[in-house]
Amino acid sequence: MARPLPVARIVAPRSVAVVGASDDVGKFGGRVIHYLQKHGFPGRLLPINPNRATIRGLPAYPRVSAVPEPPDVAILAVPAATLEAQIADCAAAGVGACIIITGKLAEAGPEGAALQDRVLAIARRAGMRLVGPNCLGIFNPVGRAMLSSSLALEEENYAPGSIGLVSQSGALMGTLLSFGRHHGARFSCCVSVGNQADLGLEDFLEHLVADEATRAIGLYIEGLREPARFRASLHAARAAGKPVFIVKAGRSEAGAQAARSHTASLAGAFPAFEAICRDAGAVVMEDPQAMVLACDAAVRLPRWPAPGLGLAPIASSGGSTVTFADMMPGVGLRIARMAPETRAVLGRWMPDSHVALPVDTGSFHEGTSGDGLAECIRAFMADPDVGAVVVPMTTQPDMAGRTALFPPLAREGGKPLLYLMTAGAVGDASRAVMRAADFPFYDRMADALAVARALDAAAAGRVAGDAPLRPAGTGPASALPSGVLTEGEAKRLLAAYGLPVTREAAAATADQAVAAARTIGFPVVLKGVSRAVVHKSDLGLVRLNLRDEDALRTAFADIIAALDHAAPGAAEGCVVQEMARGEAELFLGATHDPQFGPMVIVGAGGILVEFLQDVRMAPAPVSAATARALIEGLRVAPLLHGLRGRPPADIDAAAAALERLSWLAADLGPRLVELDVNPLILRAAGQGAIAVDARATLKKEETP
Amino acid sequence: MARPLPVARIVAPRSVAVVGASDDVGKFGGRVIHYLQKHGFPGRLLPINPNRATIRGLPAYPRVSAVPEPPDVAILAVPAATLEAQIADCAAAGVGACIIITGKLAEAGPEGAALQDRVLAIARRAGMRLVGPNCLGIFNPVGRAMLSSSLALEEENYAPGSIGLVSQSGALMGTLLSFGRHHGARFSCCVSVGNQADLGLEDFLEHLVADEATRAIGLYIEGLREPARFRASLHAARAAGKPVFIVKAGRSEAGAQAARSHTASLAGAFPAFEAICRDAGAVVMEDPQAMVLACDAAVRLPRWPAPGLGLAPIASSGGSTVTFADMMPGVGLRIARMAPETRAVLGRWMPDSHVALPVDTGSFHEGTSGDGLAECIRAFMADPDVGAVVVPMTTQPDMAGRTALFPPLAREGGKPLLYLMTAGAVGDASRAVMRAADFPFYDRMADALAVARALDAAAAGRVAGDAPLRPAGTGPASALPSGVLTEGEAKRLLAAYGLPVTREAAAATADQAVAAARTIGFPVVLKGVSRAVVHKSDLGLVRLNLRDEDALRTAFADIIAALDHAAPGAAEGCVVQEMARGEAELFLGATHDPQFGPMVIVGAGGILVEFLQDVRMAPAPVSAATARALIEGLRVAPLLHGLRGRPPADIDAAAAALERLSWLAADLGPRLVELDVNPLILRAAGQGAIAVDARATLKKEETP
Repeated sequence: MARPLPVARIVAPRSVAVVGASDDVGKFGGRVIHYLQKHGFPGRLLPINPNRATIRGLPAYPRVSAVPEPPDVAILAVPAATLEAQIADCAAAGVGACIIITGKLAEAGPEGAALQDRVLAIARRAGMRLVGPNCLGIFNPVGRAMLSSSLALEEENYAPGSIGLVSQSGALMGTLLSFGRHHGARFSCCVSVGNQADLGLEDFLEHLVADEATRAIGLYIEGLREPARFRASLHAARAAGKPVFIVKAGRSEAGAQAARSHTASLAGAFPAFEAICRDAGAVVMEDPQAMVLACDAAVRLPRWPAPGLGLAPIASSGGSTVTFADMMPGVGLRIARMAPETRAVLGRWMPDSHVALPVDTGSFHEGTSGDGLAECIRAFMADPDVGAVVVPMTTQPDMAGRTALFPPLAREGGKPLLYLMTAGAVGDASRAVMRAADFPFYDRMADALAVARALDAAAAGRVAGDAPLRPAGTGPASALPSGVLTEGEAKRLLAAYGLPVTREAAAATADQAVAAARTIGFPVVLKGVSRAVVHKSDLGLVRLNLRDEDALRTAFADIIAALDHAAPGAAEGCVVQEMARGEAELFLGATHDPQFGPMVIVGAGGILVEFLQDVRMAPAPVSAATARALIEGLRVAPLLHGLRGRPPADIDAAAAALERLSWLAADLGPRLVELDVNPLILRAAGQGAIAVDARATLKKEETP
Repeated sequence: MARPLPVARIVAPRSVAVVGASDDVGKFGGRVIHYLQKHGFPGRLLPINPNRATIRGLPAYPRVSAVPEPPDVAILAVPAATLEAQIADCAAAGVGACIIITGKLAEAGPEGAALQDRVLAIARRAGMRLVGPNCLGIFNPVGRAMLSSSLALEEENYAPGSIGLVSQSGALMGTLLSFGRHHGARFSCCVSVGNQADLGLEDFLEHLVADEATRAIGLYIEGLREPARFRASLHAARAAGKPVFIVKAGRSEAGAQAARSHTASLAGAFPAFEAICRDAGAVVMEDPQAMVLACDAAVRLPRWPAPGLGLAPIASSGGSTVTFADMMPGVGLRIARMAPETRAVLGRWMPDSHVALPVDTGSFHEGTSGDGLAECIRAFMADPDVGAVVVPMTTQPDMAGRTALFPPLAREGGKPLLYLMTAGAVGDASRAVMRAADFPFYDRMADALAVARALDAAAAGRVAGDAPLRPAGTGPASALPSGVLTEGEAKRLLAAYGLPVTREAAAATADQAVAAARTIGFPVVLKGVSRAVVHKSDLGLVRLNLRDEDALRTAFADIIAALDHAAPGAAEGCVVQEMARGEAELFLGATHDPQFGPMVIVGAGGILVEFLQDVRMAPAPVSAATARALIEGLRVAPLLHGLRGRPPADIDAAAAALERLSWLAADLGPRLVELDVNPLILRAAGQGAIAVDARATLKKEETP
């Protein structure tokens, strides 16, 4: 066979050797072959067992190298102690790829890591691919290739579907398959990648993006080995119209620590990861169960029309609709604003006083609830502000019959309908109706909310942003300093990229300061300069709003004294600056992420940035439109639009500054450690923005 | 019988007449009698039907008044058109209480409301109690009195339990019963109160607090009719050691609107409601399903030891434990900080590098996972920082056997163990183990998180706060003005209660202003005074930091001009104030809630209060300790403790100011419309706080 075996063939092999095959389903190898048979593997099955002539009715071979024709795939769930020999035998036999379920390799410590390295070396030499070790294998209902020992395969009839999964946790994947099956979700191909000695998440993601059967992709990620390839695959998925939903372990600090200790993968910084995903249109979620439901909704429900639309909850229980509506703002969802036409339709079925969302069909005129329900849902489907209809159903007579109304209404209307059945067993008849209709249902309000939020985010991610075009007058910065820059050096760097900075002049004496202030114009700011001091204002090294010569001279003497105290010997004099005032402040930042490269950050300015943690990040460079969207996405954005009669701030100028900063970050590349502008003062709309303070740290240029 | 029939007898009647009884379970009345029989009603069952001699094997009566002995309870699911006559017959027959399932009464409009009023009048005249109308009745597994038409009763064997529920939505209640049953939750008494024409939520809550079988209480509330009685019952429940978990409809604006249109109840302002509940130790939740799970955890799990403790997640899947840990901070939970003893135990079972929470038992030394798991859980149970252990289980060999380990470990350890089974049908064997062990399980990470958060909140609510004691030098305020007060009037009111306010003096001319400033000491603040202007700073009527006479005179002229422009004819001169500076700002407020009386509010100061909506509220008066806890509960609290090397602010002084303000609110009573102190400037710790601006609106004193 052609080597190396392509991933598409590994997930759908023509022949599979099961090493350690057994009639005993209590053993890993016994389960693997049992599941392959049970789920109808269509290719050739080759049990490997030195002690048996036949296993489960199939002729057995003592070792893989005894099989007449090299199998595409060998699957191994053998003790770690025998793994190396078995892999060597597979390599000798010409196996295309080994799926290694065996654990206690790199994840268990240095000894296991050394064994894993030896196994990998054997495979590399032979041109043989590896999946795992420490994985649960591959689950391919489309090709009926269940190459896994997961107990999720105890369930019957995993029908082929369109959801592709890649998971860096095997047990979690098995659990999610069983969970999805309860909801009627169907999968195309799911892969547990384990320790990724050879093939990893990026390989299988690339496969799923290309795979015809796969229409939505779910990823459980602990760390990335090939961030650039990952990013490219997300962009390719968007281009292919396949939404990607991701849960990233290690969002929280405790989680990040555990993810590091648990696998041999890198738990990259979460904010940069999330920014990269958002930029590529992928949706980062919190809950793996909700991720599976979101994938399923993306393939089985009509499309959420556009981002930012509202929800229309309707059901026969005021209690369930109101509670659902109450939970929406907490996850960033809102009630739809009904069009007059929609209100008119509702008015036919209920008193005018009740025409409002959410709709309680209990308020319908007597005896009209079935027809009224259908008509209202049709009206919502036609309403341009409705993103999806939600039916939080409670126990009621003829639940199953009522339930059957919804799938055709959603399909006819062309928008998602989220059907919630929150009861226990008494709701099972309704769930069965939905399974039979091949339509999703949800058991929890929280599930439906998470799905709605994910579908909305996927709609936002469908369209790629403007390509960033280099603005005139950005760089290149020449003669770069290195190390911790002074404020003046940092500002000159910004000015070279066209960012407006405060006018300023250095002053070694009080007389020089006065002369500078006369040129700049009172009032002025006086700052002490020292490379050794980061937070100048904490040490009394910044004096604002100095209105005249006397005030300036007094401040000068004070600051020189404070400098001598704070950083003896490191004082570099003072700088006189223009006193900038405006309507609002932002923080702008840039950095070079070790995984994802140049990034820009924007957040609330001043002390709020540290406190509120209200920041947005994006890979650099960004277009002006993306820069503006980042700013508008901040929680403090309402402050910029003018609160309590204040004039709105110049957001366009801030967006332009962020765009220019992003080019600086892109051009600096790995030399950039960090660059902060804090604050950027925004004047009233049309009057610009100005960088009042800046600091930066650059690495030395590496000599080639 | 003694009239009126007590609630304890209504929920456990000796005899029940079913009006409209039928052999047809498709009819409401048919279902009611069927369910009563099916679930083993032990009292006398009296079918009422004019056309039948027997129904379901019981002698039938043509009307209630034809029954020889007056039944305790009659249950009616008759058309609205015949309701009035039936109720009249029940009244004539001497029925103790009617449960009216019939809808289309007050909730449906003026016509229905009139009918409901007439029905109530009939009952009142006869001393007969009513439950409903528009309710789903009473569900009493302890007394085997299932007085309901809810389809949840299709399920078998509702075993008696300890969870009491009162719901203002009937359909939601039925749904919750079936949902709870799936989890093995068992109920003592559940009541759907419907339109509350007579008996309402407050009556049944009072019953459940007194009821011996009930050990935890869940409430679904749309509005309160008797807020003071409700509040007293919450305090009584705390005293009785019964945790109360509440979902309040109308938290969101859309929800509030829908709750108003859907029942005849008042949707009170949510923040005041929540403050009252927290003050009484009750836990306000978002999700009704999670509320049932929290009630169940409170009765079937050992007690969460104390508020603020951490969680210890442990399981065989790194993926599930890390994901769970990642979701914790989002709901205000944290990982436990392990004691050295705990670390030592863990170190016996896994490499030192892996000793961290969450624990992945996959990292245990080979072949030790069962014993290691038990030992680690015992160590967590003994660790003082662990509030609960969480086991987010995924599919694995012998899941059911492993599952059986946990209930004894939790019971022995005396702390909650939250067992999560997130798989679908493949996890059912484990769920069955837990049901058999009478131990809770959760199907969703989000469910376990919501339960943990609720148990932690219930622990915080178990202990009543200090009783507020009137501080020396608070009021009474004499000769109160009314209407919109000037800043000076508002500050005099504050000063009368011992709140520190800025020194200030009125100035009608610039000369007077200069004289005042010399007395107060430069720099000063100058403000224009007008009752017509609320947001002074928006109109240029406030000038800060005036350092000398010249600056003051210029500012005076400017402000007089601005006043003439902003409020022609309403100018009341200027006021010269001390220029206060400090480390931080807070907003303090007081109001008189129409339902709950005097309330105080504290939040982030300045413009942030409106923007961040970061406020805490409590019923007034409050103790200094409570005042401090409110301040510490703010999201901006870290700012007060000193960020970036700033000195910590005087939180004690702020708490004292809030305490004094709370007594002012309590003394003003309903005369208080609103009173804001914004900002209260906090100086460095030990140096006090000062009210810099204040405004208030008081109603006229009502003449008796």
